[in-house]
Amino acid sequence: MHMTDPAHWIARYNTVRERSLALAAPLSDEDCGAQSMPDASPIKWHLAHTTWFFETFILERMEADFAPFHPAFRVLFNSYYNGIGEKHPRPQRGLLTRPGLAEVKAYRANVDVRMARLFAGELPAPQREQLEMLVTLGLEHEQQHQELMLTDVKHLLAQNPLHPAYVARAAAPAGLAVAAAGGAAPEWVAFDGGLTEIGHAGNGFCFDNELPRHRQYVAPFALASRLVSNGEYLAFIEAGGYQTPSLWLAEGWDWVCTQGVRKPMYWQQDEASGRWSEFTLFGMLPLDPESPATHLSLFEADAYAHWRGARLPTEGEWEFAAQQLAVETGELHPAAARVGAASASGTAPAGGLLQMFGHCWQWTSSSYAPYPGYETAPGALGEYNGKFMLNQYVLRGSSCVTPAGHARASYRNFFPAGARWQFTGIRLARR
Amino acid sequence: MHMTDPAHWIARYNTVRERSLALAAPLSDEDCGAQSMPDASPIKWHLAHTTWFFETFILERMEADFAPFHPAFRVLFNSYYNGIGEKHPRPQRGLLTRPGLAEVKAYRANVDVRMARLFAGELPAPQREQLEMLVTLGLEHEQQHQELMLTDVKHLLAQNPLHPAYVARAAAPAGLAVAAAGGAAPEWVAFDGGLTEIGHAGNGFCFDNELPRHRQYVAPFALASRLVSNGEYLAFIEAGGYQTPSLWLAEGWDWVCTQGVRKPMYWQQDEASGRWSEFTLFGMLPLDPESPATHLSLFEADAYAHWRGARLPTEGEWEFAAQQLAVETGELHPAAARVGAASASGTAPAGGLLQMFGHCWQWTSSSYAPYPGYETAPGALGEYNGKFMLNQYVLRGSSCVTPAGHARASYRNFFPAGARWQFTGIRLARR
Amino acid sequence: MHMTDPAHWIARYNTVRERSLALAAPLSDEDCGAQSMPDASPIKWHLAHTTWFFETFILERMEADFAPFHPAFRVLFNSYYNGIGEKHPRPQRGLLTRPGLAEVKAYRANVDVRMARLFAGELPAPQREQLEMLVTLGLEHEQQHQELMLTDVKHLLAQNPLHPAYVARAAAPAGLAVAAAGGAAPEWVAFDGGLTEIGHAGNGFCFDNELPRHRQYVAPFALASRLVSNGEYLAFIEAGGYQTPSLWLAEGWDWVCTQGVRKPMYWQQDEASGRWSEFTLFGMLPLDPESPATHLSLFEADAYAHWRGARLPTEGEWEFAAQQLAVETGELHPAAARVGAASASGTAPAGGLLQMFGHCWQWTSSSYAPYPGYETAPGALGEYNGKFMLNQYVLRGSSCVTPAGHARASYRNFFPAGARWQFTGIRLARR
Amino acid sequence: MHMTDPAHWIARYNTVRERSLALAAPLSDEDCGAQSMPDASPIKWHLAHTTWFFETFILERMEADFAPFHPAFRVLFNSYYNGIGEKHPRPQRGLLTRPGLAEVKAYRANVDVRMARLFAGELPAPQREQLEMLVTLGLEHEQQHQELMLTDVKHLLAQNPLHPAYVARAAAPAGLAVAAAGGAAPEWVAFDGGLTEIGHAGNGFCFDNELPRHRQYVAPFALASRLVSNGEYLAFIEAGGYQTPSLWLAEGWDWVCTQGVRKPMYWQQDEASGRWSEFTLFGMLPLDPESPATHLSLFEADAYAHWRGARLPTEGEWEFAAQQLAVETGELHPAAARVGAASASGTAPAGGLLQMFGHCWQWTSSSYAPYPGYETAPGALGEYNGKFMLNQYVLRGSSCVTPAGHARASYRNFFPAGARWQFTGIRLARR
Repeated sequence: MHMTDPAHWIARYNTVRERSLALAAPLSDEDCGAQSMPDASPIKWHLAHTTWFFETFILERMEADFAPFHPAFRVLFNSYYNGIGEKHPRPQRGLLTRPGLAEVKAYRANVDVRMARLFAGELPAPQREQLEMLVTLGLEHEQQHQELMLTDVKHLLAQNPLHPAYVARAAAPAGLAVAAAGGAAPEWVAFDGGLTEIGHAGNGFCFDNELPRHRQYVAPFALASRLVSNGEYLAFIEAGGYQTPSLWLAEGWDWVCTQGVRKPMYWQQDEASGRWSEFTLFGMLPLDPESPATHLSLFEADAYAHWRGARLPTEGEWEFAAQQLAVETGELHPAAARVGAASASGTAPAGGLLQMFGHCWQWTSSSYAPYPGYETAPGALGEYNGKFMLNQYVLRGSSCVTPAGHARASYRNFFPAGARWQFTGIRLARR
Repeated sequence: MHMTDPAHWIARYNTVRERSLALAAPLSDEDCGAQSMPDASPIKWHLAHTTWFFETFILERMEADFAPFHPAFRVLFNSYYNGIGEKHPRPQRGLLTRPGLAEVKAYRANVDVRMARLFAGELPAPQREQLEMLVTLGLEHEQQHQELMLTDVKHLLAQNPLHPAYVARAAAPAGLAVAAAGGAAPEWVAFDGGLTEIGHAGNGFCFDNELPRHRQYVAPFALASRLVSNGEYLAFIEAGGYQTPSLWLAEGWDWVCTQGVRKPMYWQQDEASGRWSEFTLFGMLPLDPESPATHLSLFEADAYAHWRGARLPTEGEWEFAAQQLAVETGELHPAAARVGAASASGTAPAGGLLQMFGHCWQWTSSSYAPYPGYETAPGALGEYNGKFMLNQYVLRGSSCVTPAGHARASYRNFFPAGARWQFTGIRLARR
Repeated sequence: MHMTDPAHWIARYNTVRERSLALAAPLSDEDCGAQSMPDASPIKWHLAHTTWFFETFILERMEADFAPFHPAFRVLFNSYYNGIGEKHPRPQRGLLTRPGLAEVKAYRANVDVRMARLFAGELPAPQREQLEMLVTLGLEHEQQHQELMLTDVKHLLAQNPLHPAYVARAAAPAGLAVAAAGGAAPEWVAFDGGLTEIGHAGNGFCFDNELPRHRQYVAPFALASRLVSNGEYLAFIEAGGYQTPSLWLAEGWDWVCTQGVRKPMYWQQDEASGRWSEFTLFGMLPLDPESPATHLSLFEADAYAHWRGARLPTEGEWEFAAQQLAVETGELHPAAARVGAASASGTAPAGGLLQMFGHCWQWTSSSYAPYPGYETAPGALGEYNGKFMLNQYVLRGSSCVTPAGHARASYRNFFPAGARWQFTGIRLARR
Repeated sequence: MHMTDPAHWIARYNTVRERSLALAAPLSDEDCGAQSMPDASPIKWHLAHTTWFFETFILERMEADFAPFHPAFRVLFNSYYNGIGEKHPRPQRGLLTRPGLAEVKAYRANVDVRMARLFAGELPAPQREQLEMLVTLGLEHEQQHQELMLTDVKHLLAQNPLHPAYVARAAAPAGLAVAAAGGAAPEWVAFDGGLTEIGHAGNGFCFDNELPRHRQYVAPFALASRLVSNGEYLAFIEAGGYQTPSLWLAEGWDWVCTQGVRKPMYWQQDEASGRWSEFTLFGMLPLDPESPATHLSLFEADAYAHWRGARLPTEGEWEFAAQQLAVETGELHPAAARVGAASASGTAPAGGLLQMFGHCWQWTSSSYAPYPGYETAPGALGEYNGKFMLNQYVLRGSSCVTPAGHARASYRNFFPAGARWQFTGIRLARR
């Protein structure tokens, strides 16, 4: 975090910011403007909102002669910060055909220039420290939206009967789809537990919801060595899992019945042949039985675990295991844990845990709640995490579309139990 | 109708077809792709669907070696023809970012070439007659969608807090907004009525819902010489019209209460000054008190009439009056009645009716129902009109965005009582 | 109508009033309190509201020392009269466990005593005339609610898996179910039509919506001699009527699809045997193929007619035919037309129309609209009919549960196109 | 628990069963039949369902010549046990006017006789043990429904504009309303925490969700010595609490805005005087500023705590404190903790906690989740608790309408965050 050299900051800033544009590059203006459901946002909106974050929380506070790029953007691209003021209604983000994509790109360029100027300028030490803190937060925030850009555009393209691909598989960078785990059966990896500490440690960046690090007693438990695969999940379907109420939470069974759910979100079965395929960012592909099953709700994850006579891990168990593993292997030490899609997946130490990061976010049974002693930041930035700590459940790890270096062992992702458009999967636990 | 010369047909076809593209010209690709509500469609969808109409109802039947431009388009761009098969769900038209606008334009060009080839080719007389009938229908259909393109894009732009204009007023062609009527107070123009004939007469084109011409007894009545103006409607608002249940139909009062309606759809009042403005295709403009009030529901039209101690005309009265006027002036004779926005509006014969065409569609109290002896065409084209004859109300005349030459005295437009996004206004009637 | 003798008025008043209580007699207090859907009201509410009508529109205006039985009842039992003031929300009528049934009966008794006192007292001629007019309206109003009491309780009992009977068939008065028509095939009865008069004539009572009598041109037409039978409607089901979109109005097809409609409201098919039964006021009975099909929506009536190559009559045609028949037979002359369930049904003049009254209300294709020159009464009573003249369709005739003497040839019943809980059936028409 | 004498069992059984009938005694048949919302059930349904529990889970398994009282009741009165089979839809419980209340009472009497016979008969030891276990569960279950009977009837009566009382205050048994706490300001009672044990201990009855007792680390914390009072909550309202988004969870703020919440569920403010009153089981009463505020959602509890700079306790903290207190005073020892409404409330040891039991259930910040090692019973009874462990939050203590002897320190009540019709209140916590 001690990168006092402005050039370093500018480089780091630009690297993250450019990746957002790169993610939009394969898409048409129309693709970038559409919104497929209230939970998802248009790509263009992501590009603008991440820029708004820097303009509102940094430039507006620290720029000497601040003037907004466009006064209406303060409302248009405010996501959920009541402390900032009015917000354009979330379900209507897809109706904002103006500003057009080109104007949003101009907005990005303008803010980037002003940010560079701010980096390069003279600032008293406390303000520079605050700048660095806010820029770090803004870049981590942008990385979160980079993941959402991919899950949101996948959801949009999936609504189209033409099944268009985001990119051709051959031309794609690594990490846009879950990768096969090999056919080996999973093992149970046992942990002793005990009175341990959970939460972020060290000086690196973390979100406020990872703090404070605190004591937690964890009883002995075991985790499956890898994620549940498509083939394994298919066996659940074929055994009538979606027709067996005793496997489901009451709310989950309601969800199955009222929405007619019979399979993971992007699976499709050919009526004639019975063959399964799966919609991916590369278009429709045959279902790979060895890849981790993904785009599952917590309801499905819990029912599957029940069917297997197992359960989902708590977030404390998951983090404890990740810490242990890191101590053994050095791989998940907080400073080193920023593993992206390409690493920490294919191989593991003997008896170790595979696919902890870079494949699917892993549902836990833990509701998203403040850690003991949790405090929100003052002002509008205090709305970043805390106000969402209700009726959501924690996911741990990271997914194939999480930016490299973004996740860590203490990272807490969270979604409502019925959410399926993220890359969400299952790691089983038991006593 | 007897234009047997292929060149004439091709010219007429191209004129109408090119106008659709011209209407889309001021818009970005993003503008063309968005859908602001289930009732409205994206511009791109209109461009594709009108093309689909020619491909499906003409080329598929008459082209020797018919092959679809794209097999999926048959479903994607089918509006409501169950006889054709599956339809893409209407509320999701805005999610079809593929095919892109460029591909839809290529689709149009392809079908246009094939249509020209069909015109130019040899056909037995009965088939040529059928071709001419279907092409005429297809072009009238496209003109209906041209009006919808403008009302739909107006609705889309109105959702945007930036209030973007479709075109600058200075650069606009005539007829994209209602024009002032002059300050003169309206007069009552009396008609004797009697046993008359209603419905289309003559050899010109009409839709099946205008047939058969049939007898109807019309009691003596009077119509207001012009439409209700903004200034007059504002007086209704200021007199508490939206707070007085006795003025409203029961369903209208529910609509006012549950939707919190207090003014016409595109009006806006500045809180500080109390001044009214109106969103138009030219952006937000000060409200012109002398222009016809428009974008009103039947509920509002009926309540306003009630407040004035008057009522709405029946469609029979309206058509009777239009016929009488035509006899007097020669202006509205069925063969000559194809008056567009620019005519039949500014002036009228002494004691005559102004603003019958080219300003606002005029709500009648008549539910949309089949004329006695009405018959639908066989096959899927029979779904064009007949199946909508329930819980909708007839509007007569035409609006400022109706293509020139499209409407006539017997023309029956229809919408549900709560619809407001069309250019709909009020002509009062009384005994 | 000239019954100036108070004793006559009291007797007539008591006869109607007592019948309401008699209808409630077979029911428990619990039966009388429940509300099965917002469109239906509890029996207790009907008993109170009809009493409220006399108290509010007569006693409050004409009683010397008026004091309400209970001040809160003015709101609790106001159905829809905004002119009277606040109303208890319709969907919550079933939650009013207080006042209890006994107190509502005490309310009835109290109002009846006060009404008798008013009849017996001295009144100036104009006030007496007004009294007689209002009492007549109040009794006709109560008869309308007597029909609703039976259709509403039928709907309530039908929700109960125990299929309880309202009364045992053996113990029932005549007229609680549609009666068989005999197996004879229906005939087409032709009418010349012409420039005729429609609407109530003569001095007898009618509702304001039957006025003014006015000229209407009716083209030649024919009506089926009897209603469509269960057996005939079953053939429509078995021919796939509910699976054939081309038979249905667009809104009807939506209704079929979204609500999964496959049969009339109270029909039930045994899965094992395939046998059909029908829930009636006598409980569940085998379906009688010769009885008129009933509890059908306008959507179903229209689709059935379409399937048969016929159509529904307009209300003008229906009334014209009823008038003609009356001239021939003397049976339907307005003064004599108060035929109840027991008459005008089993037999008819040669070539005549059967089942015009006393079986099922007959859907027409006419939307419920004001007659030319229609005027509502001043004050709250003006809300009786006029404000409902939108998005509803007229039914003619009367049903097996219409009180004897209530209906007539000019009577206009009306419901939305999807309503099925009334005894509604089909009489076909054609040119 | 070792009451092998049948007479003891019969007496205990009868005591609980008779109380259910006693609770219904002040109500009319109509009161007992109505259902005010899907979450609440009719009194009659509670009386039948608690009987169904004994018939289905005991008599059906253990009665020699079992025959159901009525075969349809198995479905009608099944609440949520998929393992038993079909269920009558919950929102339609209020439409079951048959069986009537008298028949349901006959059902109760019949099952009571059969239960007494079972108690009195000979049974092998393992079966007798199972019988005693199931009867205990059945009686605890009935006590839970006794509380619901009172909260549900309160909700029903509150919908009635007449504001009827369940009973007159003078005639009421103790414990139907929260009692004043005295004017003393609350104190903070501090606890050291540490590695403790949570969950039921000892041989007494508990529900499966209180097991297994397990270790939990609890950091030091403090609890308010009494519940938040009406007067204190009123200050929150007057300070604009319901208009300040920064105090609320995101979902809570949505709830406030979409439902227009401005005050606790049963509070009412007189427009003229500004005086507050509160609907109670005794009818509408002036708001007592010293009584605990109740009928609050978790959203409101959390926002209030936020406003006070405090927070809600976790369930671990609450139970830890209750255990500590019991050790000091002997009053809340798990074996002795069956304190009802009348005790443990008025007085407390110096520095102790008041109103832990018998006033309001106290929202915690803990989501309802299985304890580590939690296991559900086999068969349908396994559905009793476990399947509801999602999107609900734990409440601790007991309320003024909880039956005496029902609650204890380890008892876990649970409701969704928006539920308000239970007697739910606020105890503040802080570090």
